[in-house]
Amino acid sequence: MNRGLFITLEGGEGAGKSTNATWIADYLQERGKSVLVTREPGGTEVAEAIRTVLLSPKLPAMHPDTELLLMFAARNEHLRQKILPALEQGTWVICDRFTDATYAYQGYGRNIPLARIGELETWVQGGVRPDYVLLFDLDIDTGMSRARARGRADRFEQEQAAFFERIRTGYQQRAGQIPERYPVIDAAKPLGQVREQLQQVLERILAGEAA
Amino acid sequence: MNRGLFITLEGGEGAGKSTNATWIADYLQERGKSVLVTREPGGTEVAEAIRTVLLSPKLPAMHPDTELLLMFAARNEHLRQKILPALEQGTWVICDRFTDATYAYQGYGRNIPLARIGELETWVQGGVRPDYVLLFDLDIDTGMSRARARGRADRFEQEQAAFFERIRTGYQQRAGQIPERYPVIDAAKPLGQVREQLQQVLERILAGEAA
Repeated sequence: MNRGLFITLEGGEGAGKSTNATWIADYLQERGKSVLVTREPGGTEVAEAIRTVLLSPKLPAMHPDTELLLMFAARNEHLRQKILPALEQGTWVICDRFTDATYAYQGYGRNIPLARIGELETWVQGGVRPDYVLLFDLDIDTGMSRARARGRADRFEQEQAAFFERIRTGYQQRAGQIPERYPVIDAAKPLGQVREQLQQVLERILAGEAA
Repeated sequence: MNRGLFITLEGGEGAGKSTNATWIADYLQERGKSVLVTREPGGTEVAEAIRTVLLSPKLPAMHPDTELLLMFAARNEHLRQKILPALEQGTWVICDRFTDATYAYQGYGRNIPLARIGELETWVQGGVRPDYVLLFDLDIDTGMSRARARGRADRFEQEQAAFFERIRTGYQQRAGQIPERYPVIDAAKPLGQVREQLQQVLERILAGEAA
């Protein structure tokens, strides 16, 4: 049995990752794949408990390194208990945010040195990386107004626009370094055109996997 | 103003660390020191929230690396928000457990490679280490019967005796490597004799600090 592919969805607030995760899973299942949809931080009972600490607006602001260690604690649990076992059974995993989000938010956004993030990435993941990272790219104004329309205002969404600009730049730079592994979706387009882009990307992934 | 000294209390279950922490603080305060008593994991609001995740008997068993990352997340918060600011103001800090506990419990106890713990220790602490580690050494049978008498049975205290033997060995080995920084207290003795030993250790520390 082939190992499943590990595909992560990345992008700023309101870019449509969560909305499209289920659609992607349905598309792949219609092509005969077994698919698991999950998200970070979270995805297991322990990781969701860590997520609650990370996102609670009731707690005082935490030190950036604390946030980073909690992110990787949740990620380790998610990876070991859920993602890796699924991939080994041949299931494809669609994960809403993964380590690229840590580089974007904590690295570019909060100015933690990227090399310091890389140390924890290697400590937790060894050589495990997503097979594909789908980057939902969107200008900040559109993203923030979409997020506000959903009525969400957790710790991250209370940040300033400049913070989100740094995050977008971070994602774009990472995608530009390995473009074949980081397909970029223009998420400002209407939903139908976003789905057309996704379909092209998924067909390319399926063709590559079959080859 | 002199920087405060950072003194940690270590040892297995029922060894009397918590009981003696306040006594040590009172002793030092009578000698004119400003003293902060704290504990790990915990010590700040965020770190206590992490402690709740770590010690909850309701959560499924977590991966050993997850436990380790959570320990260091709580430690980072405690160190940056509470311990280091206190030391810089000249306050002495008495901390019930610190990184030696991680080496003993997660390293020797759960067989996580010590070098892997060292990587996170350096990542979080840089060169910060306790000035003194007071090791409350106690045979396992006495310690467990004391802990049971208190009616406590959190995740760690449900472990097997062999696990606690490995922890005791780990603590003893670490103390043996730098004996001048790791005074060993014979915690099997009655409380009065434990306090006599503590008094000798504290007087030695005070004399060294004045020199």
